[in-house]
Amino acid sequence: MTRPNGSAATHAPIDVTAGHEPRIRAANPVTGDLMEPEFRLNSPLEVDQTARLAATAFMIYRRTTPEAKAGFLETIAVNIEAVGEDLVSRAMLETGLSRLRLVGELARTTNQLRLFAAALRAGNVGGIRVDPALPDRTPAPRPDIRMRKIPLGPVAVFGSSNFPFAFSNAGGDTASALAAGCPVIVKSHSAHPGTAELATEAIRKSVRESGLPDGVYGALLGSGKEIGALLVSHPEIKAVGFTGSRSGGLALARIASERPEPIPVFAEMSSVNPVFIFESGLPGTISRDYFDALTLGSGQFCTNPGLLFLPKGELGDNVVRDLARMLQSSTGQTMLTHEISSAYEIASARLGAIGGVETVARGSAGAGANAPPAAVYEVSCDRFANEPALCDEVFGATSLIVRYSEPKEMLDAAVSLDGQLTATVHAAMVDEKFVRELVGILELKAGRIIHNGWPTGVEVGHAMVHGGPFPASSNSRTTSVGTLSVERFQRPVAYQNFPESLLPEELREDNPWGQVRTVNGRIEGA
Amino acid sequence: MTRPNGSAATHAPIDVTAGHEPRIRAANPVTGDLMEPEFRLNSPLEVDQTARLAATAFMIYRRTTPEAKAGFLETIAVNIEAVGEDLVSRAMLETGLSRLRLVGELARTTNQLRLFAAALRAGNVGGIRVDPALPDRTPAPRPDIRMRKIPLGPVAVFGSSNFPFAFSNAGGDTASALAAGCPVIVKSHSAHPGTAELATEAIRKSVRESGLPDGVYGALLGSGKEIGALLVSHPEIKAVGFTGSRSGGLALARIASERPEPIPVFAEMSSVNPVFIFESGLPGTISRDYFDALTLGSGQFCTNPGLLFLPKGELGDNVVRDLARMLQSSTGQTMLTHEISSAYEIASARLGAIGGVETVARGSAGAGANAPPAAVYEVSCDRFANEPALCDEVFGATSLIVRYSEPKEMLDAAVSLDGQLTATVHAAMVDEKFVRELVGILELKAGRIIHNGWPTGVEVGHAMVHGGPFPASSNSRTTSVGTLSVERFQRPVAYQNFPESLLPEELREDNPWGQVRTVNGRIEGA
Repeated sequence: MTRPNGSAATHAPIDVTAGHEPRIRAANPVTGDLMEPEFRLNSPLEVDQTARLAATAFMIYRRTTPEAKAGFLETIAVNIEAVGEDLVSRAMLETGLSRLRLVGELARTTNQLRLFAAALRAGNVGGIRVDPALPDRTPAPRPDIRMRKIPLGPVAVFGSSNFPFAFSNAGGDTASALAAGCPVIVKSHSAHPGTAELATEAIRKSVRESGLPDGVYGALLGSGKEIGALLVSHPEIKAVGFTGSRSGGLALARIASERPEPIPVFAEMSSVNPVFIFESGLPGTISRDYFDALTLGSGQFCTNPGLLFLPKGELGDNVVRDLARMLQSSTGQTMLTHEISSAYEIASARLGAIGGVETVARGSAGAGANAPPAAVYEVSCDRFANEPALCDEVFGATSLIVRYSEPKEMLDAAVSLDGQLTATVHAAMVDEKFVRELVGILELKAGRIIHNGWPTGVEVGHAMVHGGPFPASSNSRTTSVGTLSVERFQRPVAYQNFPESLLPEELREDNPWGQVRTVNGRIEGA
Repeated sequence: MTRPNGSAATHAPIDVTAGHEPRIRAANPVTGDLMEPEFRLNSPLEVDQTARLAATAFMIYRRTTPEAKAGFLETIAVNIEAVGEDLVSRAMLETGLSRLRLVGELARTTNQLRLFAAALRAGNVGGIRVDPALPDRTPAPRPDIRMRKIPLGPVAVFGSSNFPFAFSNAGGDTASALAAGCPVIVKSHSAHPGTAELATEAIRKSVRESGLPDGVYGALLGSGKEIGALLVSHPEIKAVGFTGSRSGGLALARIASERPEPIPVFAEMSSVNPVFIFESGLPGTISRDYFDALTLGSGQFCTNPGLLFLPKGELGDNVVRDLARMLQSSTGQTMLTHEISSAYEIASARLGAIGGVETVARGSAGAGANAPPAAVYEVSCDRFANEPALCDEVFGATSLIVRYSEPKEMLDAAVSLDGQLTATVHAAMVDEKFVRELVGILELKAGRIIHNGWPTGVEVGHAMVHGGPFPASSNSRTTSVGTLSVERFQRPVAYQNFPESLLPEELREDNPWGQVRTVNGRIEGA
């Protein structure tokens, strides 16, 4: 998702009256008030200490069994649930998100931890491959070679403002890195320091209850530009997970690539999530469903539908008219921070001011300090084809409708798109030939393609892809949601001609941990 | 492997008498003579044309069945074998490598193509995951989500000088990219243009015989700094495979990361391949085996053992004495190019001149222009611990013996090492406790660990890892040899709620292509 990546200073003035210990307070986005308590910002020295502690813990954590890691993840889920009401209440104050939304996000977060636990128990996380020795092969015998995937080392995770649970301290990056066997250090998001601290306490408690060393999980509070950059630069950090703005993700990727030992950055960044509507795909509920997907959570989703291709003519006009009516009677919902709300208003107005763009409708501002109106604009497909700025993401409840005369125009527009997290097609089978062609283009543009649905829900499962070609992510070859995401934090190691007693357990002939393994290229034990 | 990455100009003077069409001739490294015929260097315009042709071919090739891709790879193997004698004869002249070695490398190359074909036929290349819809799930139904891995697009491959077959035009990067469904453009190595042309013709013939569009395979000849850089910068190129010097790999990685759309570079670069010998691991043949591994192919292997840890005392002294005797009676073998030979002599002499380093023995120069002597040096473990330059790779038959008093010193030395392709341990079971500790360190340093063997043979199989932490490779999370290497050139795409008729074949419920698939996290059809 593209949105301003808040540094602490922009959310709340740093209080330096305490001398060398700058502190922040969270701002309530509804009232604009600063809340109690104060949170101490971490120092550069603490970044170093935390990273070293993680490196020490790695030496123990990396050798734990899949079963032990699974139990640890489940303990985190239980301990998060135990403070669930506290988490939801505090997150409501810090983010302005609704109780309903946050209760759902919390369930998603604990389900996610349990899904990784289940994958570990199913023996699917080790990447085991065995090519047994062939002593009689000619002209030369084949040695015994066995591969497993091992964890990379301590991982830096950057919490995001729009998912205070599912993409923050106990979120997907943390869960997948822990499942891989990597300690995690979260650079907590400064917009929800209290939520971050509650989640951190629950995870720390789980570390202790699981008999693991403290350094398996750490959290730091401070500005991304200082504390975040130091963390990514630290030699003990071996990978980075990030969800946030394009500029933020690219800045971290640059720091990571310029280290003496470059490390991978998995940054989920920017997407407008185009929706392609064929005339045959216009059932009665498109306007309502689109309105709901657009305004859900004030549009603060990476998968928010920012671009809707709609046919010219009466059926399309009906959609626009219905939509305008819903928008006009809508009121804005509170956005996450004052900075995000301001950036939204500027970006939405800028989109509306581009030549050829007309305003379909705009809602009313909501009550409170940071509740700007939803807005939908309209432009012709001809104009769209010649103005790249029309593809820029507006983080929030603003969308652009692109009106086309012929389905063929959608194909051309799709070819011109940048990488996306999602692309969506609404059509009936009468358009199957065209849809097939469109999907063939969208495969090269997006990580996930949705048929006759909406992109906003990101199911946490085995087959989910939340990622996509640049700039949707910095690494299109993986996903930041779902069990495949564990592979981001692993690397393969081969053991050649090892005696049984020296092999890691999961590579031994008797497979004591019951891992799924590929033997001579055939999968066994599934 | 670290070695000078020859630009055309350093191997043979560019002949510009033909006006705008510069040409090169290959230099025979044994005689130093330039050979017939001349080869035309490609122009920047041809880079663009070749990349566009590949992009067009991609749209067809990416949709071929696993069976069709397997047949294509097997056809390449057959057509390479059909010109096998021509390839070996020409490569002997261009590289100075022996017939025996090249015949073996050719067999390895065709076996590799057939291994990828077999993996495709076994249904193991698609990364299929299916999470079927759960319409009755509460609080919300689960949509049907299906993942497959699709090819990234045209791949640029940089042939290496030391493997004119197995890591060049028809080598591992080409085979794995084609298996993934990606067209390939090889920047042929200027040190063996004739070999490159013969292989290219065999692959082009296979493209035609398989009914595929021409652009599925292309080859370019020219300098890495100009033609290679233009290729990596080209917007239609979506990934890079490289085997060569650290400086060359890093230069390509920089170009790739600075593109408007950054692309992944899989560069296999630099390794000294440490060998740790416990006193218990000193059987009678260590000296002979080490000498053979060191001098094989004039030491021009990425996995050449450049560092040998050996105990102080009589048993270690015996190894050194035997080794010295063998070295003194050895004569140098011709290296690949004059530039590589010169660089070897400088680097070997530089290593010998570092304070505290003593010369164990040096062989004699061989006949011909570029056959420098093998050399082995010795240093104490104390000194080794304080001089990082002792870890610099010397590409060729030079190695450094590090003498230690206690096995504990090997552990400390291992911790201080950079990333490696391989690490090797020689020990008997009496040292199991120490070996276990050492292996625990080496796992974090190397892609492959060998027990009581030598690292020089790289088996092409399913469990092989040829890669490792930086600087051994630019991406430790994968391998450039073995079937796992296909994943470098793929990315996952999820299809949500697609009707059966719109799903790609491999995701359909009836699994018409017989692909291995993970359903609800459990592997089926293996």
